[in-house]
Amino acid sequence: MGKLLIVGTLAFDAIESPFGKTDRILGGAATFIGLAAAQFDVQSAIVSVVGDDFPDSYLDILKKKNIDLSGVEIVNGGKTFFWRAKYMNDLNVRETLVTELNTLASFDPKVPEEFKTTDVVMLGNLHPSIQMSVIEQLKTRPKLIILDTMNYWMEHTWDELIAVLRHIDVLTLNDEEARQLTGEYSLVRAAEQIQKMGPKYVVIKKGEHGALLFHRSNIFFAPALPLEEVFDPTGAGDTFAGGFAGYLAATTNRSFENLKNAVIHGSNLASFCVEKFGTERMVNLEREEVARRLEQFKELTQFNIEIE
Amino acid sequence: MGKLLIVGTLAFDAIESPFGKTDRILGGAATFIGLAAAQFDVQSAIVSVVGDDFPDSYLDILKKKNIDLSGVEIVNGGKTFFWRAKYMNDLNVRETLVTELNTLASFDPKVPEEFKTTDVVMLGNLHPSIQMSVIEQLKTRPKLIILDTMNYWMEHTWDELIAVLRHIDVLTLNDEEARQLTGEYSLVRAAEQIQKMGPKYVVIKKGEHGALLFHRSNIFFAPALPLEEVFDPTGAGDTFAGGFAGYLAATTNRSFENLKNAVIHGSNLASFCVEKFGTERMVNLEREEVARRLEQFKELTQFNIEIE
Repeated sequence: MGKLLIVGTLAFDAIESPFGKTDRILGGAATFIGLAAAQFDVQSAIVSVVGDDFPDSYLDILKKKNIDLSGVEIVNGGKTFFWRAKYMNDLNVRETLVTELNTLASFDPKVPEEFKTTDVVMLGNLHPSIQMSVIEQLKTRPKLIILDTMNYWMEHTWDELIAVLRHIDVLTLNDEEARQLTGEYSLVRAAEQIQKMGPKYVVIKKGEHGALLFHRSNIFFAPALPLEEVFDPTGAGDTFAGGFAGYLAATTNRSFENLKNAVIHGSNLASFCVEKFGTERMVNLEREEVARRLEQFKELTQFNIEIE
Repeated sequence: MGKLLIVGTLAFDAIESPFGKTDRILGGAATFIGLAAAQFDVQSAIVSVVGDDFPDSYLDILKKKNIDLSGVEIVNGGKTFFWRAKYMNDLNVRETLVTELNTLASFDPKVPEEFKTTDVVMLGNLHPSIQMSVIEQLKTRPKLIILDTMNYWMEHTWDELIAVLRHIDVLTLNDEEARQLTGEYSLVRAAEQIQKMGPKYVVIKKGEHGALLFHRSNIFFAPALPLEEVFDPTGAGDTFAGGFAGYLAATTNRSFENLKNAVIHGSNLASFCVEKFGTERMVNLEREEVARRLEQFKELTQFNIEIE
């Protein structure tokens, strides 16, 4: 059974969308990554930080998925990272209303001894120096280091971001971020530039417009499953990353063919995440449903044309 | 050899993009549809109207592709439909600067006798009453009537549009238009509603984000090929439609599987159209290049996951 080390936020999210409003619910990149990866036969651990306001019931949700939480620091008297956002009518536009870093502001990740040797590392969107500190704690080079980032780090911590990119295998980011990082409008050219910065593989997430995987001259595309109703896009990108990383930790093959499969598994899991608020859909997701929806993904994308 | 009747504009286009500027060049929906369909073994005819300012050399381009032009009316002393547009930096936003209908304003389509019996009809974006008039002239029901439309007709000729929709098999339109036609934001739901209006198949074109084919509970998606450089998106939608219609006229099978293939062929041909200004790329396109790029489409989208 492959090992997966997940580094990212555990958070309180408060979400408003045209479909309703939540009070503080369980959120955070590591949460969504962990729940998605739990769909595969992996031994995973989360490294994160919370305050003592973080309910045991939330930790139990993750523990029940067999996720090792010994790397989650609980700060006495501290408050957990909090994020409040509002989605506009078409759910493609989101406004962040509140970001309270709280204990995250002084997060100093400690990788549990047992996970200093791991198959895959999934570094959720965090300060690039925190991501680097995790890599430095590893005893052996993992088969695959995957890193997620965002525009904020390009604007505020450029040098640190460039430094950590040299040490990773797969960068995941969205289309606008790929353009910002490289100054190239064409995603094909942007992915070429990013491969020169370190990562051998680039995954460009386009939300409802799917995801692209680049490696040398190979390009693979997975659509988002068209749904009757999207309820809450929060966590979809992290769920994608968790499915991608979890599948690659559960399998050993690092071929382009297998990374394609990982992209499909990630897209498949993300299609569930958006069907309910927060983590609700992911917490109760059955492997049987996942397999059935994979069939839908095949029907959606596979064709059989004879080329002369 | 299947027969394809194409009804649409022959036009002068003047295009400005971040990559350059053209004077009046050959354009129009029927032009792009005809050039794309010419990649298949079809006998096709264009029904359209131009003024006597339309150069013989433009007509020769189409004739050389074995397109029957006996249904193209040349109005003495008339001027050809003219369209001037400007693309913004990201090529997704286009501003129409000039639309001169000229001879198109009194276009009264006359289907050549030989094409009153045809396998496929491709009705390019025109006034729905003109589209209806073509259907009324047919002696036998074609295997497939495909219709393209746009928001303008929803706003100005709603009743006529609804009337013609009852008589067609496939509607092609873009995502915003599908939403406008049905009042449904979800494209899945919009396609369900459209199927109640007449067309058994719905193709939703999302430009650089690909195209979706809907039929009952079946959904198929084809991405746009990611390109290093997009030069001029003009005609991409019509080229898609021409490839779709041409493939279906060349084959006889109306199964969902074959319509999937038609969507792929349409997407494949559209990927060439945008590589140069106007019709330049399509006029000189070789079947060998088309077949090679189909291989790229396969690599881009096909995967092999065993589902337990």
